[in-house]
Amino acid sequence: MTKKVLLVGLGLIGGSLALAIKEEHPEYEISAIDRNEKSLETALELGIIDKTLLNDNLINHASDFDYIILALPVQYSIDFLEELSRYDLKEGLLLTDASSTKVEIVERAEELFKDKNVRFVGGHPMAGSHKSGVLAANINLFENAYYVLAPSSISSPEDLLEAKELLKGTRAQFIELDANEHDKVTSQLSHFPHILAALLVEQASDYAKIHPATGFLAAGGFRDMTRIASSDANMWTDIIMTNQKQLVDRLDDFTDYIQGIKQEIIDGDSQKIFSFFDDAREKRDSMQIHNGAIPSFYDLYVNVPDKVGVIHEILGYLTEAGISIINIRIIENREEIMGGLKLSFRSGKDQHDAQEIIEKKTGYKVYEA
Amino acid sequence: MTKKVLLVGLGLIGGSLALAIKEEHPEYEISAIDRNEKSLETALELGIIDKTLLNDNLINHASDFDYIILALPVQYSIDFLEELSRYDLKEGLLLTDASSTKVEIVERAEELFKDKNVRFVGGHPMAGSHKSGVLAANINLFENAYYVLAPSSISSPEDLLEAKELLKGTRAQFIELDANEHDKVTSQLSHFPHILAALLVEQASDYAKIHPATGFLAAGGFRDMTRIASSDANMWTDIIMTNQKQLVDRLDDFTDYIQGIKQEIIDGDSQKIFSFFDDAREKRDSMQIHNGAIPSFYDLYVNVPDKVGVIHEILGYLTEAGISIINIRIIENREEIMGGLKLSFRSGKDQHDAQEIIEKKTGYKVYEA
Repeated sequence: MTKKVLLVGLGLIGGSLALAIKEEHPEYEISAIDRNEKSLETALELGIIDKTLLNDNLINHASDFDYIILALPVQYSIDFLEELSRYDLKEGLLLTDASSTKVEIVERAEELFKDKNVRFVGGHPMAGSHKSGVLAANINLFENAYYVLAPSSISSPEDLLEAKELLKGTRAQFIELDANEHDKVTSQLSHFPHILAALLVEQASDYAKIHPATGFLAAGGFRDMTRIASSDANMWTDIIMTNQKQLVDRLDDFTDYIQGIKQEIIDGDSQKIFSFFDDAREKRDSMQIHNGAIPSFYDLYVNVPDKVGVIHEILGYLTEAGISIINIRIIENREEIMGGLKLSFRSGKDQHDAQEIIEKKTGYKVYEA
Repeated sequence: MTKKVLLVGLGLIGGSLALAIKEEHPEYEISAIDRNEKSLETALELGIIDKTLLNDNLINHASDFDYIILALPVQYSIDFLEELSRYDLKEGLLLTDASSTKVEIVERAEELFKDKNVRFVGGHPMAGSHKSGVLAANINLFENAYYVLAPSSISSPEDLLEAKELLKGTRAQFIELDANEHDKVTSQLSHFPHILAALLVEQASDYAKIHPATGFLAAGGFRDMTRIASSDANMWTDIIMTNQKQLVDRLDDFTDYIQGIKQEIIDGDSQKIFSFFDDAREKRDSMQIHNGAIPSFYDLYVNVPDKVGVIHEILGYLTEAGISIINIRIIENREEIMGGLKLSFRSGKDQHDAQEIIEKKTGYKVYEA
């Protein structure tokens, strides 16, 4: 049975969701709204969507849709829900979103639609990109990524199943998480670390004014820790502004941790400092860090001169042997690890076979991680 | 003119320094001391060193050497200096070290040798590895890395030049930095970030006890920010214990930064939050982050399915065209960027040519960073 889907916001996420829905439900008719008319035209030409809808016409067509998916930043999504709540909507409409925080939007949707026959399931596909725009749309964007679905007081367990079915083509791993729990967990794992990275950059940058070598002696550790500080400021402002309470809580909490280690450093008990680092290493290793679906535990380091020809040669031997790699990286600064080339494999067998092949064929030293 | 060099500690750093000295000064005679006798034997067999010295014989042979290089953790280096100060030493002996903090060792050396005709120049080659042991010794380990030389009250500018000449084979970039300044700058860029990473792991791990999804929803940002928390706890304890004052200072200072952003979040002024993130991005981009010698500014992203054959194919085209890459990485989780494959080039020209070639030959979309 055909259904009509409206995608609101046709950027990377919206475009990729359209592709995923089309893949699983080719009979569904997908319309899209975007303030950028060129995006709409392009998406139409590329067959990513079936129809375009101008915002001015929303009032007349809002009731056409069985599903409306908001793929906008949180605050725009909330604004859109408010607009939508003033229009006629189809009975039993299922609404969902794809934004980064869940409490504010779920609560607002509950208020706006509680007396209407409209269902709302919060959504957060945990994948994204520095690139944006519908041209970057990619059917594989969400593959194996976690996709959080947050129930609301205007959704039933069946509605969550229906949302999953609609979004099945994403091939994401769906998990159900209460909106409040979602915002707490993502504050700890993502939003707060972003703030931390930006603070570290700010501190180092200020320090460089008095201690100039700070401006050029940073290396791999600093680079990795501050990489996310180069993210899009608009997106992160939107996230922080809709998760204030949790962030204040994490910031306060972290201050206590800082006080703790500061006291241990002042006390100068090396056994305690050792335990601090050793426990952190152990705890980190026991955390599941999402990496697509596949944890990259099977690494090899090859001690090679970093020439493209050598890497090409090594990959040739692996291709020949039918061994897949799931990652490859040149360790440039040699600070992290012995050996210039890091290869990650799907299994211990692949890792083992690759080690044998590379050593035999090239004579380069190969180390396990 | 031949000189006699003693390397104290024949692990990765000591072994690599031996190789570098040998390369530039093949006529020098290199001896080594290490508590691991097997390392000594292996290094002798491999020709990394010319002679081994047992610690028990140090008392009888300490005066043989023109140069003594300590390649041990700071606290062991200080212990060794104390032992050495009790023995007869060659007039004009030049002593240097390769440890991670400089104030404690420079001050101790000054005290111990101020009344002797011995020179001490602090050293810190800013390269290293997760791998250890003399078998991992690599003449390229320090190539293009910064190598800090810290003058002391028992060294002259000529002594620094002499140390550089001795270590020239490392092909490192030598910079002169006062010990105190070194410890301040590295506390900000390296030691404090290590503590921050470990604290973040500790906090997240504790949070996971009450909010279990914290244990499995971490993704790329968290992984990058905490990667250094998996470093060797012994090494970092040694570093923290010899840079306590600076670390307490950085921890206190950071608490102020936390208070600042916390207040802005409470105030809920989105313009200020935006500026906070936007400034951080800009400041980070203006910092020089050391990456071997070559900043990897010339990146391309290729939107490919992550199959080894495809990468092999692409590298084949680049090899054919004589284009070198300086890094390659598969972006697995698609969270960071559009496109599965990241390639880094030495120049804008290489980047441009590679983009043309890859697009023409494969039809895959190629994006500039």
